[in-house]
Amino acid sequence: MTQSLTINRQLVLASRPKGEPDADTLRLETKPVPEPAPGQMLLRTEYLSLDPYMRGRMSDAPSYAAPVDVGAVMEGGTVAQVVVSHLDGFSAGDWVLSFNGWQDFAVSDGAGVTVLGPDLAHPSWALGIMGMPGFTAWAGLTQIGAPKSGETVCVAAATGPVGATVGQIAKLMGCHVVGIAGGAEKCAYAVKDLGFDACIDHKSDGFADKLKTAAPKGIDVYFENVGGAVFDAVLPLLNTGARIPVCGLVSGYNATELPDGPDRMGWLMGQMLRKRMTMRGFIIFKDFGHLYPEFAAAMTAWLAAGKMHYREEVIEGLEEAPRAFIGLLRGENFGKRVIHVGPE
Amino acid sequence: MTQSLTINRQLVLASRPKGEPDADTLRLETKPVPEPAPGQMLLRTEYLSLDPYMRGRMSDAPSYAAPVDVGAVMEGGTVAQVVVSHLDGFSAGDWVLSFNGWQDFAVSDGAGVTVLGPDLAHPSWALGIMGMPGFTAWAGLTQIGAPKSGETVCVAAATGPVGATVGQIAKLMGCHVVGIAGGAEKCAYAVKDLGFDACIDHKSDGFADKLKTAAPKGIDVYFENVGGAVFDAVLPLLNTGARIPVCGLVSGYNATELPDGPDRMGWLMGQMLRKRMTMRGFIIFKDFGHLYPEFAAAMTAWLAAGKMHYREEVIEGLEEAPRAFIGLLRGENFGKRVIHVGPE
Repeated sequence: MTQSLTINRQLVLASRPKGEPDADTLRLETKPVPEPAPGQMLLRTEYLSLDPYMRGRMSDAPSYAAPVDVGAVMEGGTVAQVVVSHLDGFSAGDWVLSFNGWQDFAVSDGAGVTVLGPDLAHPSWALGIMGMPGFTAWAGLTQIGAPKSGETVCVAAATGPVGATVGQIAKLMGCHVVGIAGGAEKCAYAVKDLGFDACIDHKSDGFADKLKTAAPKGIDVYFENVGGAVFDAVLPLLNTGARIPVCGLVSGYNATELPDGPDRMGWLMGQMLRKRMTMRGFIIFKDFGHLYPEFAAAMTAWLAAGKMHYREEVIEGLEEAPRAFIGLLRGENFGKRVIHVGPE
Repeated sequence: MTQSLTINRQLVLASRPKGEPDADTLRLETKPVPEPAPGQMLLRTEYLSLDPYMRGRMSDAPSYAAPVDVGAVMEGGTVAQVVVSHLDGFSAGDWVLSFNGWQDFAVSDGAGVTVLGPDLAHPSWALGIMGMPGFTAWAGLTQIGAPKSGETVCVAAATGPVGATVGQIAKLMGCHVVGIAGGAEKCAYAVKDLGFDACIDHKSDGFADKLKTAAPKGIDVYFENVGGAVFDAVLPLLNTGARIPVCGLVSGYNATELPDGPDRMGWLMGQMLRKRMTMRGFIIFKDFGHLYPEFAAAMTAWLAAGKMHYREEVIEGLEEAPRAFIGLLRGENFGKRVIHVGPE
């Protein structure tokens, strides 16, 4: 079923998942296309971004953002086109970056919607290298990690939209860059295409030893986006004065209970004390939103100069989104995963 | 046995303690007073500082500083007087801040020794409010905690030399200050004499609830010097954007194994992410040594203006040092604990 101009397909949260989301988590519904009132516009979704943070919105555990209500449309960033506008500053045909969620159409009063212009070479990039993931990578690395030339930077999910950008910017800053990824194909891509100095497959035997060999001078900046067993292997390699921007912990997002003991919480704090380390969690637009123009200028220049590779995985059809999201949490994506919602 | 001019009493590390240090950990020996060679001076210890970090020096676990060898004199900061000097810049009779360790006499080539002048109102203060503990409090609070007026600052070991200074500086910065201490007497002192807004006894029933009541707007800066059960009570109260300078974890220094599970290490990182918190370990002179003059000027002015209270617990006799140190790790001290080594 493809996008039509008369039906609004919606993926609503059917039930809160315990552990990994499954077929019962989201439900496809159809509604009439809404009518924009005066002061509103109608937006048609072309691309829907899939991002690990969405797992948090499915739960009602305390977090930095409210959960999606059961029965409500799942939230998500989108690239959309204006269909009808009763709003100054938005015209029919404009591409916009918006938060339509997992559906074909949404009405908006313009709050939080950014005009991308009428003519875009890569509309979907606003969800990736030029958008939230790219900005997350740039800000976490430059504002918290603050690596110096010659230092060693390590990042996991190295071929994902955040990890790949972290590593490439670190290379541009003169660092020794070690990636971690799942599988030989991704690791080869990180080294050959992205220019990482090394990339270690965390599913391979002897992972921790290989990581140590790849970072012979230890690790000065670890950009944390996965947690779990990967962090366990990184921790002993962290140097005195290491900085750890904490951007995500995707390996634990489906966990239903804490891992068995012993309890290493106090031990981690002891490591931070002995090694004089800094760990800082951040939520990109809340902490660094004011720096977006600086990021956008730098990234635009790098892309224009051919200094930045960006890999997308475009999946056709809104109905594929639930399955694609479950796979994303398992690390099955190779590059930035977006759903092409619009008509083929 | 009091200090003599012919015998050098030394407390040497007899064995590495497992858990809490005991009577077998340190051994009193006597040696002749050493002779300073050309380019050296002879120092006589007047005051020996006792500090929680010394527990780490007794162990051979990896740390930021080498352990004391078994059989060697225990390390420690001292206020000493120059007896004989064959060194430019040091004269007989000068008070100096030095690292004689737990003994009556030491020879020195001047490295790491600071002249305090010939005439001091409070020689021992160089080991406390004007020295390492005071500087630790000032730098951790102002450089990492960076509280704004109106924010809530929480500190444990609130009547110790670090905690008392943290809280008093935070009050001078316009903060709401909540202390945590062991026992009603210490808590009363923190409120009445030090001017804290509240101080909660961590040994009392309902400690966590009382702490929550004392910090109605949550905690913006938690100056960490104890860890353990106190941190467990603080964690749920930390606000979005909280800063946690990690200065010490004294509650765990005698631990021989990690606590039972579940393993909360990843959960702590999740809290840091959701609440966008910063945690940073620091070792005072390594991280902030260049700021000592700025600290000394500020603290001197506060003391001269009567804006800073400082409580010392002077214990007579080098032979009392082992017992006094064991008590310090148990939190038995009330104020900064120093040993008066010199003659009465």
